[in-house]
Amino acid sequence: MTRRRKFYGWGYEGEGMTVAEESAALENFRRLFGVDRFEEKPVPALSEIRLPTPRIVPPPVLSAICSASAYDRALHSFGKSYPDTVHGLQGDYSGAPDVVASPRTESEVAAVVDWAGGLPASITPFGGGSSVVGGVAPARGPAGGKGTVTLDLGRMGRVLEVDPVSCAARIEGGVFGPALEEQSRPHGLTLRHFPQSFEHSTLGGWIATRSGGHYATLRTHIDDFVEGLRVVTPRGIVETRRLPGSGAGPSPDRLFIGSEGTLGVITEAWMRLTPRPRFRAGAVVWFPDFFFAARALRALVQAGFTPANCRILDPEEARNTGAGDGRTALMVLGFEGWDRPLEDLLAQALALVGDHGGQAEKPGPGPGAAERWRTAFIRMPYTRERMVPRAIISDTFETAITWERFEALHAAVTKATLGAIRGATGRPGQVTCRITHAYPDGPAPYFSFHALGRHGALIGQWQTIKNAASEALLVAGGTITHHHAVGRDHRPWYDRQRPDLFAEALRAAKAALDPGGLFNPGVLIDP
Amino acid sequence: MTRRRKFYGWGYEGEGMTVAEESAALENFRRLFGVDRFEEKPVPALSEIRLPTPRIVPPPVLSAICSASAYDRALHSFGKSYPDTVHGLQGDYSGAPDVVASPRTESEVAAVVDWAGGLPASITPFGGGSSVVGGVAPARGPAGGKGTVTLDLGRMGRVLEVDPVSCAARIEGGVFGPALEEQSRPHGLTLRHFPQSFEHSTLGGWIATRSGGHYATLRTHIDDFVEGLRVVTPRGIVETRRLPGSGAGPSPDRLFIGSEGTLGVITEAWMRLTPRPRFRAGAVVWFPDFFFAARALRALVQAGFTPANCRILDPEEARNTGAGDGRTALMVLGFEGWDRPLEDLLAQALALVGDHGGQAEKPGPGPGAAERWRTAFIRMPYTRERMVPRAIISDTFETAITWERFEALHAAVTKATLGAIRGATGRPGQVTCRITHAYPDGPAPYFSFHALGRHGALIGQWQTIKNAASEALLVAGGTITHHHAVGRDHRPWYDRQRPDLFAEALRAAKAALDPGGLFNPGVLIDP
Repeated sequence: MTRRRKFYGWGYEGEGMTVAEESAALENFRRLFGVDRFEEKPVPALSEIRLPTPRIVPPPVLSAICSASAYDRALHSFGKSYPDTVHGLQGDYSGAPDVVASPRTESEVAAVVDWAGGLPASITPFGGGSSVVGGVAPARGPAGGKGTVTLDLGRMGRVLEVDPVSCAARIEGGVFGPALEEQSRPHGLTLRHFPQSFEHSTLGGWIATRSGGHYATLRTHIDDFVEGLRVVTPRGIVETRRLPGSGAGPSPDRLFIGSEGTLGVITEAWMRLTPRPRFRAGAVVWFPDFFFAARALRALVQAGFTPANCRILDPEEARNTGAGDGRTALMVLGFEGWDRPLEDLLAQALALVGDHGGQAEKPGPGPGAAERWRTAFIRMPYTRERMVPRAIISDTFETAITWERFEALHAAVTKATLGAIRGATGRPGQVTCRITHAYPDGPAPYFSFHALGRHGALIGQWQTIKNAASEALLVAGGTITHHHAVGRDHRPWYDRQRPDLFAEALRAAKAALDPGGLFNPGVLIDP
Repeated sequence: MTRRRKFYGWGYEGEGMTVAEESAALENFRRLFGVDRFEEKPVPALSEIRLPTPRIVPPPVLSAICSASAYDRALHSFGKSYPDTVHGLQGDYSGAPDVVASPRTESEVAAVVDWAGGLPASITPFGGGSSVVGGVAPARGPAGGKGTVTLDLGRMGRVLEVDPVSCAARIEGGVFGPALEEQSRPHGLTLRHFPQSFEHSTLGGWIATRSGGHYATLRTHIDDFVEGLRVVTPRGIVETRRLPGSGAGPSPDRLFIGSEGTLGVITEAWMRLTPRPRFRAGAVVWFPDFFFAARALRALVQAGFTPANCRILDPEEARNTGAGDGRTALMVLGFEGWDRPLEDLLAQALALVGDHGGQAEKPGPGPGAAERWRTAFIRMPYTRERMVPRAIISDTFETAITWERFEALHAAVTKATLGAIRGATGRPGQVTCRITHAYPDGPAPYFSFHALGRHGALIGQWQTIKNAASEALLVAGGTITHHHAVGRDHRPWYDRQRPDLFAEALRAAKAALDPGGLFNPGVLIDP
């Protein structure tokens, strides 16, 4: 392995914000918070981190695939959430896993599960570790309590079999986005699942968390691309039948899709791929305000348009990403196809959104708004590791809601979040919104918030804001997550949104597959 | 109630095949089996039927909504499967429910569940009773064993609330297809779910059985139209949150979708409706043979076309339905839309299927092939009740399979079924195939078979053929059902197709919601 992922922050070692990106972000935040400078704390080096003594040691037969090195344990202590990054800054690695196992085959996965299942221990499945909701943090217990094993699937990254006739492939759960696409490309196929974390997340992770990907309409979640699954559970292997569709009882796949590592670990999936699209047509459309854009978006999807991309950004979100000047909202609209040029379809869509006040961007020199937004989108995850040391609280959360309640939800969530920022930090902050996915019956709004916190109080301040935002979301009728998953961070609101009797059914199902409560205890349900 | 449903056969009293339809069908079967006449047995009148003495009697507080009349018990003894119809002909109503409860409100549903839960009894939810897989037959036990209550939702048929902004409606589970559409029409909305049973099946039944409806591509099952559900279980009410999309854990809705009455009864659902389509364009395309048509269909769906209808019929299926002359296969292709004319899209689709040998039908005088097929399709369910008395064995089964295994599955299933017909009846029969739904990764083939049986041996002969066909389906990689459900008839193959550990998870979930095993024992899983 020539490149290593950073144990703190996003991406590979040596990667990060450029000087120009960092200056621009800081300038933006200085203006926003009305301050001249930020107090910057140093990020601990790996050598400065104190890790707890491992409570368990793997047997010799597993030693080749297990590690308790400082790097491996630090890397697997957290995902990439806001509190994760604060804990990293504070050098708090008290929740580090005792052992990181990196199996190369399904039978090695089973061997790790068998070993851990015989101990007082828990297992946390780990793909790319890009969770922003505390989804890969090992179960916490008393010191000297149960051991913790993180099961890193990253060495199981092969496309095992391709069926070019049905446009499908059998793929290992640990494959990262780029490797999946690279191995599919020679067959003329693509999964086209491009979450923001694409480079640093895996197929198994996407399925376990119901990842939202490339498509803004129609098939928005990875769920729709799963043809069949293999899952290693403590009771044995579950393999579902590879089928294009079925009506035979409740879908077995759907029990594991979104199970977030609580029922076992997804080692393989048959996935629906697609020929690489041959035609594209897109445009950027400006609107007087966000709600004009939202009504245009609703008109589009309710008229049966199914663009691959149709994100809308509010004016401040557009400005923050360099796509706009802060006075108008925008829609990034794009169609993809295989058989025919799409210009007519785009023209029809533009006519429709024009009825709602949309004006298509005139092509000019330099990168257009869509390109500027896309660059900012891809670079965004590198920001957090540099802003947390300045006590900047900057995070996102997302939901879905039916159209008739969307404007009220937007108002309530924005108000509650801004209020909580002021309450927690003593000064105003910012809340912006975009819509990332759209359905005929409702949008998936995605909020960002920015506040100036105080070193030593960051976690508490963030939690106050997060609580207020989540409470407002839930009361307004939304879901606590459209595609970021539940993890440990969303449990309180997930518990309230989910029917109690469904929780009991899920708990019973888990007890049937994982009677010892080995896998991810405390995620989704209590043991 | 002015019209009653027939206790034997399809539809309302007074409805049935016309003399002309019956002569045409008999002529067809005489030619097929090479016989001059059929021995016809009389169908018992209601007054001739012997019903077992009810083992349980509802308490006075429920008497207004309960019935033990001969008509009600006979009507609810069966669905509309082939063996159901033979049992009806034989006057075998030994499995009749003891009590038929027809609640008008959810609290009356709960009262029935509470009452039955306190007895040794089972409950069978019943919508329209159109099951062709033994899905509404009460649990069988020893005479004098547990009582059986059929819970008929047919009086809960209201659209309770319409959200025109999100194009959604809250609808009672017992609504029949026509009443649902009638109540949605004033709002300019439609569910457009038109299974063959449309007139005689209910929303709750569609959801409980993962019904396949109008759309041949994309959103083929009712599953995709469910926004939220209310289910009465023995432990209480489950209500899922109304959401356009979510990523919060395994989908609660998907546990109940396809649960076939084993977890409780669906009393309400928020459903995604759609504005009534304003544009349509369609054509009939002829192909040299079925596999040419199938390859054209695959090309269409893999190129991203999503026609509302794109059924293909093999030559004999086309002839049997009056749509063709038996020498060529056909495709019925139709697009629907809201915003723009569809002629260009149809022309592009026709060009693509033309590359695979398809020739569009020239418009001529009289009804075209599509119209002739549609009429036959709607009238088809009336055939069984008149052919069973002639000892004609005529049934259908369906599956789904990925494209690369489709031709092999078709060959194996056809051969096995034809062989079993000859083995069971001593003479040749017929097996035909159409494809009802198509996905980028595979089709849903739908088989019909016809054989000449012998009175007194019909059930055994049918079972021999059914076993051979199901075994071949399963071995070739298909699902035992794409949209007819599992019921009691498909249990043996469902058990083999479904992962064992998923069965254990489902059994545990059922035990959590229905600890007494009250609801549909023996369907999907054993108690």
